[in-house]
Amino acid sequence: MAKRDSNNQEVAAAYRSIKARGGIAFPEAMVKAWLERRGVAVPAGCVVRTRQEASKTAAEAGYPVVLKVSSDRMLHKTEAGAVKLGISSPGELRREFGEMRARANDSMRHDGFEGVLVEQQVPSGVEIIVGLQNDPHFGPVLMVGTGGIYTDLLADVAFRMLPVTRAQVKDMLAGLQGRALLEGFRGSPPCDVKALEDCILKIAKLGADIAPYLEGADFNPVIVTASGAVVVDAKVVLSDEVRPGAIKSGRPRTEHLDSFFNPRSVAVIGASASAGKIGNVIVDSLVNYQFKGRIYPINPNRSDIIGVRCYPSLASLPEAPELAVMVVDLAEGPRLMRELAALGTHAMLVVSGGGKELGGRREDIEREMTALSRELDVRVVGPNCIGAFDGVSRFDSFFHSHERLLRPPAGPMSFITQSGTWGCSFLEAAEITGVRKMVSYGNRVDVDEADMVECLAADEGTRVTGSYIEGLGDGRKFVAAARTSIARHGKPVVVFKTGRNARSATAAVSHTGAYGGAYQVYRGVLRQAGIITTDSFHELFAACLALSLQPPAGGPHAAMLSNGAGPMVNALDLFPASGLELVKLTRASVRAMRDHFSFFYLVENPVDVTGSASAEDYEFVIRTLLGDPRVDIIMPFFVFQDTPLDESIVERMGALSRAAEKPIVGCAAGGPYTRKMSRALEEVGVPVFPDVAQWVAAASALVDWGRIRKGK
Amino acid sequence: MAKRDSNNQEVAAAYRSIKARGGIAFPEAMVKAWLERRGVAVPAGCVVRTRQEASKTAAEAGYPVVLKVSSDRMLHKTEAGAVKLGISSPGELRREFGEMRARANDSMRHDGFEGVLVEQQVPSGVEIIVGLQNDPHFGPVLMVGTGGIYTDLLADVAFRMLPVTRAQVKDMLAGLQGRALLEGFRGSPPCDVKALEDCILKIAKLGADIAPYLEGADFNPVIVTASGAVVVDAKVVLSDEVRPGAIKSGRPRTEHLDSFFNPRSVAVIGASASAGKIGNVIVDSLVNYQFKGRIYPINPNRSDIIGVRCYPSLASLPEAPELAVMVVDLAEGPRLMRELAALGTHAMLVVSGGGKELGGRREDIEREMTALSRELDVRVVGPNCIGAFDGVSRFDSFFHSHERLLRPPAGPMSFITQSGTWGCSFLEAAEITGVRKMVSYGNRVDVDEADMVECLAADEGTRVTGSYIEGLGDGRKFVAAARTSIARHGKPVVVFKTGRNARSATAAVSHTGAYGGAYQVYRGVLRQAGIITTDSFHELFAACLALSLQPPAGGPHAAMLSNGAGPMVNALDLFPASGLELVKLTRASVRAMRDHFSFFYLVENPVDVTGSASAEDYEFVIRTLLGDPRVDIIMPFFVFQDTPLDESIVERMGALSRAAEKPIVGCAAGGPYTRKMSRALEEVGVPVFPDVAQWVAAASALVDWGRIRKGK
Repeated sequence: MAKRDSNNQEVAAAYRSIKARGGIAFPEAMVKAWLERRGVAVPAGCVVRTRQEASKTAAEAGYPVVLKVSSDRMLHKTEAGAVKLGISSPGELRREFGEMRARANDSMRHDGFEGVLVEQQVPSGVEIIVGLQNDPHFGPVLMVGTGGIYTDLLADVAFRMLPVTRAQVKDMLAGLQGRALLEGFRGSPPCDVKALEDCILKIAKLGADIAPYLEGADFNPVIVTASGAVVVDAKVVLSDEVRPGAIKSGRPRTEHLDSFFNPRSVAVIGASASAGKIGNVIVDSLVNYQFKGRIYPINPNRSDIIGVRCYPSLASLPEAPELAVMVVDLAEGPRLMRELAALGTHAMLVVSGGGKELGGRREDIEREMTALSRELDVRVVGPNCIGAFDGVSRFDSFFHSHERLLRPPAGPMSFITQSGTWGCSFLEAAEITGVRKMVSYGNRVDVDEADMVECLAADEGTRVTGSYIEGLGDGRKFVAAARTSIARHGKPVVVFKTGRNARSATAAVSHTGAYGGAYQVYRGVLRQAGIITTDSFHELFAACLALSLQPPAGGPHAAMLSNGAGPMVNALDLFPASGLELVKLTRASVRAMRDHFSFFYLVENPVDVTGSASAEDYEFVIRTLLGDPRVDIIMPFFVFQDTPLDESIVERMGALSRAAEKPIVGCAAGGPYTRKMSRALEEVGVPVFPDVAQWVAAASALVDWGRIRKGK
Repeated sequence: MAKRDSNNQEVAAAYRSIKARGGIAFPEAMVKAWLERRGVAVPAGCVVRTRQEASKTAAEAGYPVVLKVSSDRMLHKTEAGAVKLGISSPGELRREFGEMRARANDSMRHDGFEGVLVEQQVPSGVEIIVGLQNDPHFGPVLMVGTGGIYTDLLADVAFRMLPVTRAQVKDMLAGLQGRALLEGFRGSPPCDVKALEDCILKIAKLGADIAPYLEGADFNPVIVTASGAVVVDAKVVLSDEVRPGAIKSGRPRTEHLDSFFNPRSVAVIGASASAGKIGNVIVDSLVNYQFKGRIYPINPNRSDIIGVRCYPSLASLPEAPELAVMVVDLAEGPRLMRELAALGTHAMLVVSGGGKELGGRREDIEREMTALSRELDVRVVGPNCIGAFDGVSRFDSFFHSHERLLRPPAGPMSFITQSGTWGCSFLEAAEITGVRKMVSYGNRVDVDEADMVECLAADEGTRVTGSYIEGLGDGRKFVAAARTSIARHGKPVVVFKTGRNARSATAAVSHTGAYGGAYQVYRGVLRQAGIITTDSFHELFAACLALSLQPPAGGPHAAMLSNGAGPMVNALDLFPASGLELVKLTRASVRAMRDHFSFFYLVENPVDVTGSASAEDYEFVIRTLLGDPRVDIIMPFFVFQDTPLDESIVERMGALSRAAEKPIVGCAAGGPYTRKMSRALEEVGVPVFPDVAQWVAAASALVDWGRIRKGK
């Protein structure tokens, strides 16, 4: 601990002095000294100012050597001609040193020139890039990727939040395309991967120490050979200001969130008597459907709306409403929050838009509401959202008529979404299996995705939480909440993240920085947290449905069957990227099917029961696969259009699924009859998707969840 | 021509003599000599047998030099230690030469050792791989990719069929990730891309000359710098036997294909009286629905089926049927073909399966039918298929009841499929817009996808042909037919190819060979042919629907609008891979919208008209975008669940679309009401997809088709 403190003090002092003289980076030699002290291998050498020192250092380090301008200001040394490789003799050294010093004194005089770094040239090996970055959403993150000149070309990188464990570093390396290089490539011996892991872990520790001062860092290349890993180049760019809490995050807050789902009483501020108006549709939905709470429309110009007594103001209500739904101009927000606080109401759902998306003064309104929320203990969902739905209380705040938007039954899935549109889509897709809670949180002046994930983790009826995210507010807070759901409550969290091409403004200064805010960072961190990720809204829904209806898979080994082979060929193309593996069945399974069926059934995996297959045939195959110890998950495709496939398939599949300990997920693509049959199967607990990509994503999610539950 | 002949004779002679002595490759020096004669730069040097020759050659070439064992048998020189780089002095040369020769004489005596190739070592530059391959489906193909040690890791390669034009070579290079390296990378000057193109074109010409003798070839690396392109390594593996017609292909044959779609009379061989049996459902579908032709059930045990007179045999029919549909055991196929030929019938559709997929003697039946088809002039569709559908004649051969499988109305799309399952799905997806012709060709003993594409190209009612392919029979024949459709008839061909992970057995001998039969080859060749490719069945359907309802796009510049922003964020993530670009609107467009709308509408592209948007608002935005000269394609998303979006949207969109010269493709995701509205829009000619991936694929297809039509 004392050592750590002294490290930190040294870094802090260096930061201050470099900043004071206008520097923007820790000099390379300084960073390498820190690394060396932590046990990381770096090339022999040091910073020199004279020819004599250069010759002496080179002689000690051993030729060939490299020269690099040492500076706390220069970020692109290779491009600036400030690096010279492969100097193989004292004569060459003297000449090159002289030229470099002259150039530096000349053109780089004001560029922080403080000498020339003379180093042994490290023999070639596999080039890995290790990076550190203060990500806008996740704070300090570690990057590992295939390095060298192809870094940008390959974009073969993995990210994790700091701190990291060795297991997580192993997982990062395992996910790289470039791992093949480390395993011994085209006749070269395997690299010392353990040494690389050590090196990465130590860089990660350095990252934790320097996080408050860090904009971004590239260690590129780290050269890895059979005998170790050496950090050849080090570039650490300083942050504009010290961020002492860089590695900390907010704590999820669930106070009063129940009021958004099961309020005993609701005030609708901006209730309207005009059919079709937002303030009318919301009241209509609360009054005329299944919600049982008390409803208080507020509108100073009406005495009643849809037959319900209307009030002129919050103050005139007979009781403090448990929840207020606001549809008037957002500028009224702060005033209404104060009024609610005075009444003792702790929940306001703001449907109104026109906030920060318009910039300027509208942004200030949101900032004020954020502050008031804490100050007054009034939780706010929104603004700019469609709000909340509860499958049990039947509360919703939607401005969508029931004719246009189905409200699904209560069911095991919950959904948190930054987009109201995907919220509507989710509810309607869940028409059969149902939704426990849904919330669209819009511009999240207060309640955010993390608060909601934490809330749903403890929610009894929720078995799985899906989330559509464009950008997280506090990424570490979200991860903390997801961990609560996954580890403490054993409930999976599934994310679909869009806005994937965003690149941060720091792209110019480091390779690592080029990924700031990009999807690679999200993907790595979400994986680290045990969150399941998907690549489209439809895949997100498919994963949630499968996880809510079926048990997790014990492993990645899938078996498929169909009465039409085409879609299985298609699915197999998606297997490598999804982590699924087509398993070879046991001989006993194959023999059982061979003995049972006509000669023209193809009884290896994938099993082709042909257009002649009956429901009984499906049942026989699935029973065989359930009994095959090699099979972890069963994926039937149904051509329901084929006449021999009789409708007893529904009852048979329901019974199989209820008794099975292995998951079953199906697929079927067609018109009204196919949809009818798919729905019937979903009703008995077997999800059947209309799209091969959904089918594979659902199976993949069940495999992921099996792995995550085992803590892998 | 004389020169070409003499080249060919030389290659033929070399092939014979190498084969005669058990060689498997053209020696590198020989290939380089051929390249040099064609004007391709290769390193100075030659094959030597003595130290003295080696020293003389090295002195002439200039140090540093490289040594390589010259052999017609060794394929993996680097791995076998038969390459020595960076020899920088005469002393080192003598030593290394001696060692290499000793090793070669020793261990490689029987490995075709014929000397050591001494060559100037080419200075470093950008490494490109150029390859040649006899692809199992497309014959001789050219590969270009990012080369060097990362070749396999990057898999950054493009393929085209030989011969190629310079424009096609440019297109290959433009499609590589590695093009950034050629354009000047991290401070290095731009490469001489023209020299690289020349080099590739000349290798391609060599490829055409040596195609009959070629298994596969790697030219890796070709080193490209600012001053030219040099082929540093050349490996050409010989084919097992000479294939004189390697670059030729079959000719599409359309004779008698009309009989499969609009037959005046149909015999059903294997008609059944048992409800639910295949031979019953087919007769029922022909008799009891809209088909107007004469129907002859054939079954020796029945006098009538479903009220239609039944015949005991083909010979007993009152006329020669125009088409026979066969559902009896495939083993009857050859006999039935002979009977049909005797009657003068030229078309047999074989629904029965149990052919080559079972191997052994069942495969022989198919081979016999293929031969008989030519001999007897009886065209065969199938076996193992669901057969054909015609939207106008209302003929179909499906064993799917009308209750389970919708037959769509006649419409502009036609579909050719290797999978009956996807055939059913296509028909049902086309419920509104309709299908002209559909055929599932199964094991294609005779009629294949190429014959059908050629047939549909000339088919009056077909506006676009979609095709689901697992593997092409004769790839060049398919390309020829597609060119007829695209170039002569101006009709797009859209393909979805599965079975993408297949790797050929030649993977072991060359980098290029590792891709044989893999999707990279298909993708490159299909692009070369102007065929539009898609990545899922649903995207295939979306592309066909958009191309049949909307005009092609004049360029890639898309504008989006929605009353819910989420799906637009999602679509934007898919833009880079799809070739779409989000365009910046003209100031006039933005001002027009700003003046027209409330302050909270976001009027830059993508346009967010918010949940308050009416149908009139959509119309105003789309009119503005149609008038914006920067916009090529308009992509509205509709949250139909939002109450302000009134149903006049249907009429408005129909009118806009009919008058527009720019394409409009929509998207909407939701439940019954959303589906109803989407269907209503499709009825007025505006496709609206339930899935963002389909939306983007459809737009991308319209952009592709615009480009292809311009011959780009």
